[in-house]
This record gives sequence, C-alpha cells and structure tokens, in this order.
Amino acid sequence: MRLRGRVVAALGFLFVGAGVVIGQSWRSAEEKGVMASDAAWLKAYGTRDVAQALAFCDDAASMMAPYAPIATGKDAIGKLIAAEFAVPDMKLSWHADKAGVARSGELGYTSGTYEVSFSEAPGKPGMDRGKYLTVWKKQADGAWKVLFDIYNSDLPPPSGG
Amino acid sequence: MRLRGRVVAALGFLFVGAGVVIGQSWRSAEEKGVMASDAAWLKAYGTRDVAQALAFCDDAASMMAPYAPIATGKDAIGKLIAAEFAVPDMKLSWHADKAGVARSGELGYTSGTYEVSFSEAPGKPGMDRGKYLTVWKKQADGAWKVLFDIYNSDLPPPSGG
Repeated sequence: MRLRGRVVAALGFLFVGAGVVIGQSWRSAEEKGVMASDAAWLKAYGTRDVAQALAFCDDAASMMAPYAPIATGKDAIGKLIAAEFAVPDMKLSWHADKAGVARSGELGYTSGTYEVSFSEAPGKPGMDRGKYLTVWKKQADGAWKVLFDIYNSDLPPPSGG
Repeated sequence: MRLRGRVVAALGFLFVGAGVVIGQSWRSAEEKGVMASDAAWLKAYGTRDVAQALAFCDDAASMMAPYAPIATGKDAIGKLIAAEFAVPDMKLSWHADKAGVARSGELGYTSGTYEVSFSEAPGKPGMDRGKYLTVWKKQADGAWKVLFDIYNSDLPPPSGG
C-alpha cells in the first residue's frame, strides 16, 4: 500500500478548490467571482499545462500538499504541478460547497470536496476523496489568484498494518 | 502502523492555527489581533476543556481533519475535540508563520506549522508534524472566531507496505 500512499501524496496538491455555482442568486457578485475563478482553475488543470495552472497562483502563493513540506512561490509550486501532471490516468473533479469574500472585496475563500482516480500501477486503479480550503487574493487588475491552497483525504491512511 | 495512522487521524484537528507574534511591528493591528486569537486558541486546547476550545469556533465553523469527513457546527466539532483530548500523552505545539486580514477587517487567515507527540500504545511513542490553514471571521463583538480549519502532515503516510 505504500505505492498508493505515494501516488496519493504526489497527486495531493491537485485537489484544490473550485466549483461552478451559476445561478445561485443568494451569492454576492464577489462570491460568484471567486467561485468562477476556482472553476477556471480546474479547467486550467485539465489542460495539463503547468504554465496555465500556475497562472492562477499569486506570486506569494503557498501550496500545502499532504506528505510534503509547504511549497511557496511559483518555482516550488510549478515543480509540484509538473509532478502531478505526470501521474498516469488521473481523472479529477472537485466542487466548492462554500465561498466567501470580505466586504472590502480583496480577500476570499472557497471550500469543498474533491474526488480523483488514477493508476497506481498498470492495471491497478487507485482513488482518493477529501476536502480542501483555498484562500484567494484579488490582484490589482481584478483577477482572483490563489494565496493558500490545502486539502486532505477523507479516507483512512494507506496502511499495510 | 495502522494504529499510528488512526491515532494521528484522531489527533488530526488539533493541529490548528496559532502563534504568538508579539513585537512584530510590520504586522498591522488587525493581523496582530488574529494572531493573538490563534495563540489564545492554543492555550484553550491546552486546558483539555472541550467547551473552552469550542468557544473559539464560529457557529458555522468547519473542521477538516485528515481521514475524516468535514465536521461542521459545534456539535460535530465538539465530538472531534473530545476524541482528541482522549489521546494519551499528547504534547502539541504550533506556530503561525503568516497572517492576513482583509481591509474591511472582518475576514482573516493564519497559516503555519505544527508538531505533536503522543503515545500510540503504552511505551510506544508517536509523533507527527505538518502545516495548517485557518480562516477567521470577526464576530459582532469584535472577537475573532474560526470559520475553517484544515491541516495535513509533512510526513509520508503510515504504511506497512
């Protein structure tokens, strides 16, 4: 089961906030904005293009993947993303259940759940599901970018014991 | 190693934001406020009194511990805290490296690292270390309370593989 654990660990930081919440009129325009940025980030991950995924991160962003130290800054985060995109047969989905934006409009969050499947080895499928929290910072040009992203699994730890 | 995994899982949500940053003049008064609340939360955990620890949570708070589903609301969070306080010989420390507050002053975050030791079984010490992200919401009375708290380990997953 160690392999599964390592694959899950390597996948880790992919499971990050997003979700489309179109038409939920109870959300403020700002909340809809941060949710839309989350959904756009998921689409960027789907391209498997590191630069596109990295473009959603603030220059000071920290990605906090399980089983790894904090990765801060675009160089460190880019290496994480590249490693993740190399995982075979990965299919990832996520959905933000909650979002909020400060009254001043420059700081927000999204939180929700993720699910992922992948290949641990040829013919050996793996999966994981869990939850995440993302803090977003609005840039000078009005775009939301990720300041912190962290998640963990709902499932028991991989264990041979 | 399963036991260690379960103990770590049970401990999980304790590893939550705090840190004293007294005298860092580069921090705004609001940032110092949210850091002080984090430090006060750590002290509340130290009492092993569930009600004191729970008092730092917003009524809508979500605690997102590894290996468990999201716990939302004081009933669910209180059960988590009670389970954690039952772990033998636990010694926990944490430190917030980063903090921020929106210009409007009602939404903030802390983020940093934790370290914990405990007994997996009589005579069998265990430990974990990792990082966390906490989102704080200022209440009508001016007190900061936890809206979201999530963390994960830096260490490889417990595994017998």
